[in-house]
Amino acid sequence: MLSFENDYSEGAHPRILQKLMQTNMQQEPGYGEDSFTAQAKAKIKSAIDNPNASVHFLQGGTQTNQIVIDALLKPYEGVITPDKGHINVHEAGAIEYTGHKLLALPTVNGKLTAAEVRKYLETFYDDDHHDFMVFPGMVYISFPTEYGLLYSKQELTDLHQVCQAYKIPLFIDGARLGYGLMSDEADISFKELAQLCDVFYIGGTKTGALCGEAVVFTSDNEPKHFVTIVKQHGALLAKGRLIGIQFLELFSDNLYFELSKHADEMAKIVKQGFLKKGYRPYLASATNQQFFIVEDTKIAALAKKVKFARWLRYDDTHSVIRFSTCWATTEDSVKELLTLI
Amino acid sequence: MLSFENDYSEGAHPRILQKLMQTNMQQEPGYGEDSFTAQAKAKIKSAIDNPNASVHFLQGGTQTNQIVIDALLKPYEGVITPDKGHINVHEAGAIEYTGHKLLALPTVNGKLTAAEVRKYLETFYDDDHHDFMVFPGMVYISFPTEYGLLYSKQELTDLHQVCQAYKIPLFIDGARLGYGLMSDEADISFKELAQLCDVFYIGGTKTGALCGEAVVFTSDNEPKHFVTIVKQHGALLAKGRLIGIQFLELFSDNLYFELSKHADEMAKIVKQGFLKKGYRPYLASATNQQFFIVEDTKIAALAKKVKFARWLRYDDTHSVIRFSTCWATTEDSVKELLTLI
Amino acid sequence: MLSFENDYSEGAHPRILQKLMQTNMQQEPGYGEDSFTAQAKAKIKSAIDNPNASVHFLQGGTQTNQIVIDALLKPYEGVITPDKGHINVHEAGAIEYTGHKLLALPTVNGKLTAAEVRKYLETFYDDDHHDFMVFPGMVYISFPTEYGLLYSKQELTDLHQVCQAYKIPLFIDGARLGYGLMSDEADISFKELAQLCDVFYIGGTKTGALCGEAVVFTSDNEPKHFVTIVKQHGALLAKGRLIGIQFLELFSDNLYFELSKHADEMAKIVKQGFLKKGYRPYLASATNQQFFIVEDTKIAALAKKVKFARWLRYDDTHSVIRFSTCWATTEDSVKELLTLI
Amino acid sequence: MLSFENDYSEGAHPRILQKLMQTNMQQEPGYGEDSFTAQAKAKIKSAIDNPNASVHFLQGGTQTNQIVIDALLKPYEGVITPDKGHINVHEAGAIEYTGHKLLALPTVNGKLTAAEVRKYLETFYDDDHHDFMVFPGMVYISFPTEYGLLYSKQELTDLHQVCQAYKIPLFIDGARLGYGLMSDEADISFKELAQLCDVFYIGGTKTGALCGEAVVFTSDNEPKHFVTIVKQHGALLAKGRLIGIQFLELFSDNLYFELSKHADEMAKIVKQGFLKKGYRPYLASATNQQFFIVEDTKIAALAKKVKFARWLRYDDTHSVIRFSTCWATTEDSVKELLTLI
Repeated sequence: MLSFENDYSEGAHPRILQKLMQTNMQQEPGYGEDSFTAQAKAKIKSAIDNPNASVHFLQGGTQTNQIVIDALLKPYEGVITPDKGHINVHEAGAIEYTGHKLLALPTVNGKLTAAEVRKYLETFYDDDHHDFMVFPGMVYISFPTEYGLLYSKQELTDLHQVCQAYKIPLFIDGARLGYGLMSDEADISFKELAQLCDVFYIGGTKTGALCGEAVVFTSDNEPKHFVTIVKQHGALLAKGRLIGIQFLELFSDNLYFELSKHADEMAKIVKQGFLKKGYRPYLASATNQQFFIVEDTKIAALAKKVKFARWLRYDDTHSVIRFSTCWATTEDSVKELLTLI
Repeated sequence: MLSFENDYSEGAHPRILQKLMQTNMQQEPGYGEDSFTAQAKAKIKSAIDNPNASVHFLQGGTQTNQIVIDALLKPYEGVITPDKGHINVHEAGAIEYTGHKLLALPTVNGKLTAAEVRKYLETFYDDDHHDFMVFPGMVYISFPTEYGLLYSKQELTDLHQVCQAYKIPLFIDGARLGYGLMSDEADISFKELAQLCDVFYIGGTKTGALCGEAVVFTSDNEPKHFVTIVKQHGALLAKGRLIGIQFLELFSDNLYFELSKHADEMAKIVKQGFLKKGYRPYLASATNQQFFIVEDTKIAALAKKVKFARWLRYDDTHSVIRFSTCWATTEDSVKELLTLI
Repeated sequence: MLSFENDYSEGAHPRILQKLMQTNMQQEPGYGEDSFTAQAKAKIKSAIDNPNASVHFLQGGTQTNQIVIDALLKPYEGVITPDKGHINVHEAGAIEYTGHKLLALPTVNGKLTAAEVRKYLETFYDDDHHDFMVFPGMVYISFPTEYGLLYSKQELTDLHQVCQAYKIPLFIDGARLGYGLMSDEADISFKELAQLCDVFYIGGTKTGALCGEAVVFTSDNEPKHFVTIVKQHGALLAKGRLIGIQFLELFSDNLYFELSKHADEMAKIVKQGFLKKGYRPYLASATNQQFFIVEDTKIAALAKKVKFARWLRYDDTHSVIRFSTCWATTEDSVKELLTLI
Repeated sequence: MLSFENDYSEGAHPRILQKLMQTNMQQEPGYGEDSFTAQAKAKIKSAIDNPNASVHFLQGGTQTNQIVIDALLKPYEGVITPDKGHINVHEAGAIEYTGHKLLALPTVNGKLTAAEVRKYLETFYDDDHHDFMVFPGMVYISFPTEYGLLYSKQELTDLHQVCQAYKIPLFIDGARLGYGLMSDEADISFKELAQLCDVFYIGGTKTGALCGEAVVFTSDNEPKHFVTIVKQHGALLAKGRLIGIQFLELFSDNLYFELSKHADEMAKIVKQGFLKKGYRPYLASATNQQFFIVEDTKIAALAKKVKFARWLRYDDTHSVIRFSTCWATTEDSVKELLTLI
């Protein structure tokens, strides 16, 4: 059955598999000390034009969020997050497992504003009892958000300024970073985004890799003994080359962004087709995930024809469903989808 | 200066100190195996008419919340709490420190309703993705709440029924339990409250003891090797008698409830006096803590004459302040207070 | 330069890469719900002739040890391990990170005996103070050990009996399981090993996979909500197929054991060649890792000609070095090695 | 029955109770901000002649070890401890619960030597794989040890020098500090001991207090936001005065050391009496705890006449038993004991 269920239904982009084949018998040191990993790191640092950045490869998004946040926070600190942030909803308490509270701020659409963060920080430090509360030690946002929304350059600039004023890092979860940056509505470049935060990660899993996320510390802020911390969290691959090779390929010939762009374009056609047929969008996503508010009876009917994700209950008779595109989505499949709805 | 800052400004009720003096040279085993602790446990079980209950003494409220919650939850579970719950605000992340997420539900006045809890649980189990979310493993409420409000017998019955339907324990934080039970507005007895939850604690620190809280597991649900768990959390006193003796005295001749009642009566006079002078109550507390919304300029003036607690900012020009009574509050001091405001 | 540094220097066995290529565009559900994972699980359960076993795939050895141990232990329990156990030495404290103490028993050669374990358990429960100690909740061993030694069928039977007598699981770390089972000196089959423990894992990373370990719970003892626990530890791959496909291939046509056997045979030639030239073995390994006690000056000379691992200092003038073979080791490379030493 | 079971069988020294009585109705701020706590801190800083020291009061020994170690270590660090160290044996895994490994060094008599520590540290940093191991971040010793032995001034000086060379703190567990310092065999003063470590604690519980230990950071090394950390661990007493008052009294008129001296003198008489009757000492303790190797049949007979602690099995027919004295031990009771053995 036709599937738009998510952006990780296929294996990897063929070029990645080819690169794995081609390099397969080359003997390399383990644990991220291999030459491919070194080259991939250099490519990424070059792409953001920041030779002082430090890059590390991990396997998945939850793992990356868990390790970055745990490694950067002091034990008595928590992380400010939009209430709809992935770490606050769908990561099984992975952050709290490491001892840190999520300081979830209510949002309308899943986006944090600089003003809200500033107010939270001001109120916190103004409180006579704040020594008995969890210190805000970081701000976490996703770009794009879990519902495909973008932060503008100005919004990121403002958020970063608040963080700098309070000397806490801004962390951008980029599980779908490429889809955000290549969106028609993005007004910010990869390099600019890297300058407007202290740490972010580049999602590989959801953009054509078999697995792998690239963490980038941009502010001379790599935690001391980070490799040991990664090992302690059970997240250091013996064959680090597996992820190094994939990112090396993704950052060769602009592949990562080309794949992202393709998916965004496919999603745009999906979106327009749905809108044309009168579907009601949940939030105005301009990326590879499109969310619609649909009647439950209609959802049941649709589900017989195509795969998609049931996202959340909207009201007693409607739910929000999600259609995702990815590097592997073809124009033909999108056309077929539009005939089915 | 006259102080109504909190309910733990003095030492202990004189009868407690006398009991400590009188028993001082008696040699007893350590770690809660002493005869006083045994007697105190028996008194409490008798007071709730539940010989199968199990009672343990700990030192303070945050410690008690931390250990009870950590000991009863599975590692992948979190605790449902009102957003204003003490564990969610003023305990420095002590629950998350043990790896558990707080599932904070928004409330208007800090009270959870059975309907809200049921809806949360239904929505959770209805969610296709709930395996990637934190399982709700307990409901936590405070009686009285952090702002002095009470749950009625019906409200507790309803909450307990929801918990039983989902097979999760209901835990009542009783840091100020006596003040709640002895309030004019309480419609529930100590014994009834004990029947309507699975675990609760009786606050000693804020009701006349030097320190100490009594945890009561009411449903044959004492966690296995609980003493080892307490030791592992650094909370097992060598001289367990210190708390055993205090609770033995508090539960002799109804002292615990007499002290609570006295404080509530003093608070009532405070409340009436303030209302009469036009002060605006924050929430309609019927216990030993009274909260008022007061102009900041007025607060500054008051602060020169009497001690109270600044609780939270209400709006740009007003804050909420708290006046507490306790066993040691005299009618004279209350009268003096009312002349000062 | 010729390298015998470890058993994870190359990529994956070509058949695995081919399978990844061949299945690449097939759309599959995420998070281990794909059809390849299902097939791989069935293959493994069939290989141990235990339809009730439950199998889960994780990425690496430290991660697997961490999650299995944390998921099976109660919070107040620790794990009995030989002092030289991998979890006690080279995993950066990953077990303690989850709150559990390692109860390390001194060993001569890194192997635990049933008698030692029994004595430890007897002494523990005989101790008046054992409520203030960490309860032994599991026994951990590696097969083969970190130095390539094997447990005989009788030794495993005895260990398992002690564990059963005390109702604690026996966990076998099988990071190099195949190399142990296919050793000339092994007197136990895969199926028998699976019957003589409660949980074990099959190492993929060190036996021809890009990554991946297969955890097998053999005693109807899969921890409740294990997938949530895995997610909480940041260890649930979105593209679970990556490991499912690899194990499906490894357990087709006996590939896993063929690769292991090949490596053991290569190691045997290495061993004989070294012994012939008068090298002193550290321990009598019959698996793919061979350890020798060599003078430091000689080590420095060797290191110019071939790569190997410096393992530990033996005395002031000698160290222990390790030569590893794997699926990719050729007879030619072994011959070349023997000319260099 | 006559009891020498431990040094915490009675309540508190009468002067402490009197002070609690006398100060009882004085209203004071909570959470350690009271005037008694301030005075007690000043007394301790004065006693060690270190105005820059910082002092905090906690409730018990395990709690203090847990918090001090957790607060000073980085997440990837562990603590070097003698194998017989209290934290390694009788604290229910309280340190591992906070995520830190104990790096237990084998000892003959429970004492660490500077040479052993230096060798451990050298070997660690010499190891090619040390990034995958737990970094040694602190040295923990007890003064006196769990078996009543002392470190000489020279031994402490040497240990401290090693720690300083490796820039890790030396932490002295002083649960029975006074008994050590006042021993006939001690060659070091309180002030000198405080200069030869980076953090230590003064045990109150075992030296006449109802509860309470005083942590002293001597090297301008109080962890940032230490009060929040204490709260997060559930260890901040609302009525901090309870411990402040006790230490204020203990450090008035040299009471703490007088009580310790008395107990040591009583223990000396015990020791001499036992030796005279042919009892075999386990280790040559010169403090308030005396350990003897006694036949099991004899132990059973003794147990009918006097209380003592059964410590450990020595061999098939002998065990080690312990007799403790304390501030409350009278010369008459010691004489009576000697008639019973």
